[in-house]
Amino acid sequence: MPDSVHVSTQFDEDLARLRTHVLHMGGLVETQIAASIEACISGEVDRVRAIVDTDRKINDLEKAIDDDCAHIIARRQPIASDLRLILGISKIVTDLERSGDEAKKIAKGVRRIHEAGTLPKQYGIGIRHLAEAALSMVHQALDAFARMDGALALNVIRADVEVDVEFKSIIRQLITHMMEDPRTITTSIDIMAIARAIERIGDHAKNISEQVVYVVDGRDIRYDKGAIK
Amino acid sequence: MPDSVHVSTQFDEDLARLRTHVLHMGGLVETQIAASIEACISGEVDRVRAIVDTDRKINDLEKAIDDDCAHIIARRQPIASDLRLILGISKIVTDLERSGDEAKKIAKGVRRIHEAGTLPKQYGIGIRHLAEAALSMVHQALDAFARMDGALALNVIRADVEVDVEFKSIIRQLITHMMEDPRTITTSIDIMAIARAIERIGDHAKNISEQVVYVVDGRDIRYDKGAIK
Repeated sequence: MPDSVHVSTQFDEDLARLRTHVLHMGGLVETQIAASIEACISGEVDRVRAIVDTDRKINDLEKAIDDDCAHIIARRQPIASDLRLILGISKIVTDLERSGDEAKKIAKGVRRIHEAGTLPKQYGIGIRHLAEAALSMVHQALDAFARMDGALALNVIRADVEVDVEFKSIIRQLITHMMEDPRTITTSIDIMAIARAIERIGDHAKNISEQVVYVVDGRDIRYDKGAIK
Repeated sequence: MPDSVHVSTQFDEDLARLRTHVLHMGGLVETQIAASIEACISGEVDRVRAIVDTDRKINDLEKAIDDDCAHIIARRQPIASDLRLILGISKIVTDLERSGDEAKKIAKGVRRIHEAGTLPKQYGIGIRHLAEAALSMVHQALDAFARMDGALALNVIRADVEVDVEFKSIIRQLITHMMEDPRTITTSIDIMAIARAIERIGDHAKNISEQVVYVVDGRDIRYDKGAIK
């Protein structure tokens, strides 16, 4: 076998391993978000400990993937789309890890709410709806990454606007509720923090999708509203 | 001149240019944060438009620096500490840009508060104090980057705990205030958003400092509480 083929095969294996690790990390983050939302709706705060434990695994994976990225660049000296893939991954894992942090914040908010009482029913529906939209963004962003599908990534970026609108509507409802009945202030502030964490998860999914577009076709569409029309 | 020296000199110039651009971007972000806090305290909402305009420059710088990082890696095939510098910068600019976003959120909160009335005096002091601590973290993180000073970077990471404590104390005060006088709810929610944005700026400065430690001595100390003792 000629040397260049051999090297190229090893390099392909490196890149395949990196992608697998990112998808594994992404799967953990998705589970983490889904579990924190389930705990929020159901009030089963026992789940919260497991969420905090998974957060450590997610942190370790981020560090391992970043380390792998640096080693692959040093060893393989990638260029063009291979280099974009590695640099994109290095940005993607940051957003995945921070999504995991938001899931942890949701879990902690859930614990506070359920220690003081229960989640008022009228917010269960809104929070679930917001969370489903954000979780679907994360899922599709990871799907776009797995299949290197730039068009799907653009759809995720577009979906972020709806999550932002729903988030603002929940905040407005909460403020009205607090003004009508000041006894609900503490719980409302916790629900607000949960809604904000979900909204941020949507932002991270958007950031991940922007990196997928960069990896796929080399365009950096961040902050470029025209690019997603 | 032998070829290797020539290449190395060009490479050094590339790295020097990158560092200069990061410090320029950092300077804009610092100014942005300081201006948004000044507007918050003084109520001069005219400043808000300038803050939104600077945000575009910061976004453009982030994209230009990221693009430069990719080109330098492809052209120079750096290894060891040179590669760490470039990868570290690619993470640092993300945190700088997101700090700029938080400054924009502060500015928008300021506009809402001052459209409805003025910032209640008792919060001016707390917000200013919190902001000074966070701004000092950003300044020192950039200083640590400029001088590649790992010890200073560790100090910044340690300082984040104090910002978090102060932030939580402001939130508690605001909740008490809202319960005592529900007419303050809307303004209190806006002040809360401003305090949270400042707290996040501290988090970003911490993240930047972690990257400085990585660049300086190759240690990835993220999520490792033992490393900063």
